[in-house]
Amino acid sequence: MTLAPWRSALSHALHRNRSLVYARYLQLATVRPNGQPANRTVVFRGFLDGTNQLQFVTDARSAKVEQIAHHNQAEVCWYFPKTREQFRIAGLLTLISAEHPQAELASVRRSVWAELSEGSRLQFAWPDPGKPRGTPADFAPPPPSAEQPLENFCLLLLDPSSVDHLELRGEPQNRWLYSSDDNNNWVVQAVNP
Amino acid sequence: MTLAPWRSALSHALHRNRSLVYARYLQLATVRPNGQPANRTVVFRGFLDGTNQLQFVTDARSAKVEQIAHHNQAEVCWYFPKTREQFRIAGLLTLISAEHPQAELASVRRSVWAELSEGSRLQFAWPDPGKPRGTPADFAPPPPSAEQPLENFCLLLLDPSSVDHLELRGEPQNRWLYSSDDNNNWVVQAVNP
Repeated sequence: MTLAPWRSALSHALHRNRSLVYARYLQLATVRPNGQPANRTVVFRGFLDGTNQLQFVTDARSAKVEQIAHHNQAEVCWYFPKTREQFRIAGLLTLISAEHPQAELASVRRSVWAELSEGSRLQFAWPDPGKPRGTPADFAPPPPSAEQPLENFCLLLLDPSSVDHLELRGEPQNRWLYSSDDNNNWVVQAVNP
Repeated sequence: MTLAPWRSALSHALHRNRSLVYARYLQLATVRPNGQPANRTVVFRGFLDGTNQLQFVTDARSAKVEQIAHHNQAEVCWYFPKTREQFRIAGLLTLISAEHPQAELASVRRSVWAELSEGSRLQFAWPDPGKPRGTPADFAPPPPSAEQPLENFCLLLLDPSSVDHLELRGEPQNRWLYSSDDNNNWVVQAVNP
């Protein structure tokens, strides 16, 4: 596989915004089973090796997992404050849960778990998200093993099919649309911002 | 009308993040006519006087206008970097275009136009967004009048029906769900993050 042509622009943005921890935070829009949009911040966890797929992590108990099972299209919006540019990345989501049949992806799930901070891993041992607030003791579980992911830990992959890159800093602004065909060939076009 | 109970938390976040210009940027998710999600950054333009409705501006030629005509539900995701908190605000969108019949809202549309920077107003005179890139001359139109909005300038209102407020800074994190009933009465519940 070859890197998609938008990868270099995104790498450049990540590099130039690296001093801001929240430059790795982006907003993931999905569609709820009732057809209404949902939107939340997620943390970029790098690309799946040898692919153009973005990695995130999520909890099997979170609402987005049900949404994805129902409708696996998503669009992330990623704004980089320092360089004043935005990437809108649309594509298909794949959830890699504890039961995932492919050994290779199951192994990536374990690696991503091991690379999380202890604090991030601990959140997967907290009581059910969105349910009435638990007691302080509920939030002080024993730290999970770094080797064996908790059952509810999921890796989430976004396989992009279109990317809309907007640079606000241009004079005037610059904007490019990247889209891939069925053979995973990417084309790019400069468009009006 | 009374301020919804989440308004004070949001005001507090805006105040404590006021040194970051991009703390007024948030991500607006809508649903495309084909059922797929769309997500882009918009700028918060304050609340509509005497209401809990958030104001944004948009161009009648942008894709989101067609999306809203088809499906007026939205969810914005608003992350505040300094205080490490997120508001997810879901509700109904109303577009106030040049033809809007209500005199009061038509007047607000003109006021918001007048308050934009000259550079922001100029963008509404640029060539069609998303179309193949125009020439430099296309991006150097005469500056529009500050008094009379261009025809394609729209005010966009979001009337919230639920708000999900997450504070990452808590020990552990704090999260509250606010929801309004049909009589516009708000209830709030502390939930697990």
